[in-house]
Amino acid sequence: MVQAATLPRNEAGIETAVGILKQRFGDRLQTGAAIRAQHGHTTTWIENQSPDAVVFPHSTEDVAQIIRTCGAHKVPVIPFGTGTSLEGHVNAPAGGISVDLTQMNRILAVNTSDLDCIVQPGVTREDLNTHLRDQGLFFPIDPGANASLGGMAATRASGTNAVRYGTMKDNVLSLEAVMPDGQVIRTGHRARKSSAGYDLTRLLIGAEGTLGIITEITLRLQGIPEAITSARCSFPTVDAACQAVMMTIQYGIPVARIELLDQMSVQAANAYSGLDLPETPLLLLEFHGSDSGAAEQAETFGQIAAEFGGVDFTATSTTEERNKLWQARHDMYWASLQLRPGAQGISTDVCVPISRLAECVTAAQDKAQELGLLAPIVGHVGDGNFHTLVLLDMEIATEVSAAEEFVGWLNDLAISMNGTCTGEHGIGQGKRPYLVKELGAATAYMAAIKAALDPDNIMNPGKIL
Amino acid sequence: MVQAATLPRNEAGIETAVGILKQRFGDRLQTGAAIRAQHGHTTTWIENQSPDAVVFPHSTEDVAQIIRTCGAHKVPVIPFGTGTSLEGHVNAPAGGISVDLTQMNRILAVNTSDLDCIVQPGVTREDLNTHLRDQGLFFPIDPGANASLGGMAATRASGTNAVRYGTMKDNVLSLEAVMPDGQVIRTGHRARKSSAGYDLTRLLIGAEGTLGIITEITLRLQGIPEAITSARCSFPTVDAACQAVMMTIQYGIPVARIELLDQMSVQAANAYSGLDLPETPLLLLEFHGSDSGAAEQAETFGQIAAEFGGVDFTATSTTEERNKLWQARHDMYWASLQLRPGAQGISTDVCVPISRLAECVTAAQDKAQELGLLAPIVGHVGDGNFHTLVLLDMEIATEVSAAEEFVGWLNDLAISMNGTCTGEHGIGQGKRPYLVKELGAATAYMAAIKAALDPDNIMNPGKIL
Repeated sequence: MVQAATLPRNEAGIETAVGILKQRFGDRLQTGAAIRAQHGHTTTWIENQSPDAVVFPHSTEDVAQIIRTCGAHKVPVIPFGTGTSLEGHVNAPAGGISVDLTQMNRILAVNTSDLDCIVQPGVTREDLNTHLRDQGLFFPIDPGANASLGGMAATRASGTNAVRYGTMKDNVLSLEAVMPDGQVIRTGHRARKSSAGYDLTRLLIGAEGTLGIITEITLRLQGIPEAITSARCSFPTVDAACQAVMMTIQYGIPVARIELLDQMSVQAANAYSGLDLPETPLLLLEFHGSDSGAAEQAETFGQIAAEFGGVDFTATSTTEERNKLWQARHDMYWASLQLRPGAQGISTDVCVPISRLAECVTAAQDKAQELGLLAPIVGHVGDGNFHTLVLLDMEIATEVSAAEEFVGWLNDLAISMNGTCTGEHGIGQGKRPYLVKELGAATAYMAAIKAALDPDNIMNPGKIL
Repeated sequence: MVQAATLPRNEAGIETAVGILKQRFGDRLQTGAAIRAQHGHTTTWIENQSPDAVVFPHSTEDVAQIIRTCGAHKVPVIPFGTGTSLEGHVNAPAGGISVDLTQMNRILAVNTSDLDCIVQPGVTREDLNTHLRDQGLFFPIDPGANASLGGMAATRASGTNAVRYGTMKDNVLSLEAVMPDGQVIRTGHRARKSSAGYDLTRLLIGAEGTLGIITEITLRLQGIPEAITSARCSFPTVDAACQAVMMTIQYGIPVARIELLDQMSVQAANAYSGLDLPETPLLLLEFHGSDSGAAEQAETFGQIAAEFGGVDFTATSTTEERNKLWQARHDMYWASLQLRPGAQGISTDVCVPISRLAECVTAAQDKAQELGLLAPIVGHVGDGNFHTLVLLDMEIATEVSAAEEFVGWLNDLAISMNGTCTGEHGIGQGKRPYLVKELGAATAYMAAIKAALDPDNIMNPGKIL
């Protein structure tokens, strides 16, 4: 495991706050070692730093009480959704109270006429989409994991559909949140747009729980498209695939998803999902529109792909065929792990301007090889965003340090290409040094905002800044 | 004129700062009454509050010097773009220095492969689009006026294309800004998306210059669509037109513009632009796509419109016909003024959930009539956003007070419908009371952020908060 910095613990405050909250919440406050460890769980290599207690609020008022109690005793508060974040977001480096929001999971309103809905933060994206299906609506953001919508907002999540539908910042109309002083605010209402004052909605989106806890989310929804066409196409090189992506975007094809699998990922997918894809870089696509519109998009893409040496182009509108392809994409994490049974997968993401993407991906492949690391790559390439999954034996110290070198090198490279050290995973604990490299002086103003809103630094301390 | 609150003036500080800046900027600092009055100009009814001097920076370093000088002497700094804002944004209620950014008007880079560009804040949207045309690209945000892109970012502008392309918040990738302490920051780089830290980009967008001055803007661009089809359709009532809009959006037709003109506006357009439109509520639309795609969108809309009693539906792809229609829309301000020659037009905007739009527009028409006001309405109705242009004789005090009553009533109504007191005009001086009504406790956190970043309140004081 990679060490995460610990912060000084306020033992007396923690003890007092846990006592008070136990009185209020009874069995809804847990202090068992297993549940605490689970709430410090991180799917990366950062060591577990468990909270001292886990509390399960049912309402905004519950959350406000928790924050007020913790504020009065200067005790850290760490919001918890489904625990699928990747950079140590839910760790408790100074101890404190994990606020598990999974029981705040009600869908409060769906306004079909306005294509919006209001949900509690513990609703997962799959729950929401199941609920919406009969109404012909869907919520498009898909980060892979069945994450909670509160967590997705807090980490500014995105994923495969972002190239068309944007990220969480584009799909949240407004929020209700409990601020570090325990006050409840609304950042807006249900208007599609507003220029009323500072954009607190966007300030809380991506703040990773360091400025408050999101207790209600008003989301934009989309109508389920009349037609969905999936396609795949194999390319001789990563460069050729990226050229095709660039041309597709420039052409204005409103592609809903456009995913790159590098050669190693395709090999993994073939083995795991029983496919027989050509073992060269692959693009997987999805087009949304009317019957003729989606077909036209796929056809135009096919022509572009052919220009760049794309082969084995196939497009399908049948649900079964589509699901098979996308299931393979969704299973990539598990498929990749099978490239080295017993290894742990460390996922890191960067995002660069699309014109630099081929160069960045190719350099990452070369660097991994140079360091002796197995590291398949998949990417939401329409946005210039890709993930490298480093397959590690955590018991071998030289491998871990090689992987650390690789991740640092990749972040630096992305920043040097006018990109970002994280397209969608966030900063958490893991990427704090790169945030400073990327944004320099701007981080001082982030710190000033944090200090102004949370002077005692109780909200998810040790993250982002 | 409607009075705007004045704030205490720091006479000694202003005199010192003007002296220092005069030394540095020479003829690029002006103190003549006419130029000062022009820079306190507001196109609304709020009285002119002129700055003490106007300075014309040429570089980020110039802006930093101005802010540092003003900061050292606690003198207000008021950024100025083209002066087309509508709520007193450029007034100087405590005096101070107007920073006119029109000479920072260079397009620094256009990256066609990445569909982005970097501009200085004084570049206007028309200048940018003229520059881009040969490269097959355009910047979609069109607030009507040929505003500067810095001003558009600072006020979170949007306009007719927002229903498809979003507002400034969706089309700015990152900013360079000079903060209130004179430090220069970058809020991001050229990645299409990032989850690196607090979203300072979105915090500055819509902050109306109260948190710093934007000195460089990295913008997303769009490819000019293969085909543009315009259409118009007349409806028996505002309600029927709004029902058609709602169905169009629910259908997922990616309409690029969908504008409502109420009956009075249609009458004004006919008279001013020599048209012979049926004098009932009208929808004007634009569709972007491939040849077949745009045509299909128009056809589908035509079917929807017919369901709601739409008549006289016409669609055209010829540039001349399109321009004639949209010129009439763009001329609505002047056309409306001709409904009452000599009157001043006071434009106010609100935005509500689309399901409440018909009710809100109809209530506004009734209320204006009840108060004896002439007030044609046009709207970016795909977003639920509309503008009422109250035609006033500013010499008649009872009219002015009736108009004030009307504007207040309309803002309250929009807020009561889960909407916002401003969809795109911003808060400035004019809408400050409504911001508090709309967002309540949240405004205290805006004030805390303002105090943290600008403790001496030098950046555009008296606006938003």
